[in-house]
Amino acid sequence: MNFSSKLLSNAVEEISKLPGIGKSTALRLALHLVNKEKGDIDLLLKSIRDLKDSVVFCEKCKSISDEKICDICLSVNRDTKTLCIVEDIRDVMAIENTGQFKGLYHVLGGKISPVDGIGPNQLNIDSLIDRVESEEINEIIFALSATMEGDTTNYYIFRKINKDGIRFSTIARGVSIGDNLEYTDEITLGRSIIKRIPFEQSSS
Amino acid sequence: MNFSSKLLSNAVEEISKLPGIGKSTALRLALHLVNKEKGDIDLLLKSIRDLKDSVVFCEKCKSISDEKICDICLSVNRDTKTLCIVEDIRDVMAIENTGQFKGLYHVLGGKISPVDGIGPNQLNIDSLIDRVESEEINEIIFALSATMEGDTTNYYIFRKINKDGIRFSTIARGVSIGDNLEYTDEITLGRSIIKRIPFEQSSS
Repeated sequence: MNFSSKLLSNAVEEISKLPGIGKSTALRLALHLVNKEKGDIDLLLKSIRDLKDSVVFCEKCKSISDEKICDICLSVNRDTKTLCIVEDIRDVMAIENTGQFKGLYHVLGGKISPVDGIGPNQLNIDSLIDRVESEEINEIIFALSATMEGDTTNYYIFRKINKDGIRFSTIARGVSIGDNLEYTDEITLGRSIIKRIPFEQSSS
Repeated sequence: MNFSSKLLSNAVEEISKLPGIGKSTALRLALHLVNKEKGDIDLLLKSIRDLKDSVVFCEKCKSISDEKICDICLSVNRDTKTLCIVEDIRDVMAIENTGQFKGLYHVLGGKISPVDGIGPNQLNIDSLIDRVESEEINEIIFALSATMEGDTTNYYIFRKINKDGIRFSTIARGVSIGDNLEYTDEITLGRSIIKRIPFEQSSS
């Protein structure tokens, strides 16, 4: 693109480095910022600066937090014996929004993916193992993506944890509630038939 | 959304105020920023700060510029007697990229749109009229959106300029080059038939 302003060109360049934002969107955002009130820009820049400078990761669950230990880990109303393993904080938020889980989380920070150069050492797996060994845990629920990488990560962790008395589970996979069968992909539908559940259990 | 961190929640709130960016995208961007190098964040924030603090609008054409007069208006290689009227700087960039126009521009900053509360006084129309009266202009080319608002704005400006010896034109409208007729909307196609051009002229 042919910019009339070096300042504009710089801003577009930097904004377009954000994921999912191309040059055209970056230009639209930059022009929007030029026309905005200075106070609004200050708020935006300050919020990003504060986030970067002050945010910490919870020492227990590795989720993003404002304090050393996050609110969920500190809460006295949670079942501390059940751990849900997730990829990142968005998954914590998604599960919290369902209101169906009262245990604690452990955020891995991704999943094992050799293609992307992510091995077990890049993930919060050692801290998970320490946690399972030092705390009283009854159940570990894997809530990772239903992909090959997710399954590999689940299996790696399952093999690494040598402790008796822990039940392992993965969140259920199958046809989404409300979905029409004709629009369900065939792998999901096929697995749903193989992993069918007794009718008496299906409505509970 | 249920955030574990006030800092994260603030950043998402501010980022989602940008046009076309919803809460989910804002969260994705905020988490990306958390994981980025501090130096990269500094560059991003500085580029936005510099853009906001130092950018100016060219005194002649009202385009975004780093100096009082922009490079295009300063250039000695441009035809100063032909003015192209556009809505915003993106249009200047789009026309410059074609390499087909060697005149000067005038950026209105929008188009007359009573629905959005934008009247002639919110646009750079007075400065355009001053410019036409004080400079030697032979031709004015309207390159606004091919919409009712664009046409209204063209007509308003056409009526306001009382000076002999100026040719007015609008950029051509019709079927896009490379387009299949069956996918062209019927209004464009209908107008293309009414405004058909002699065959000898069509290939020049």
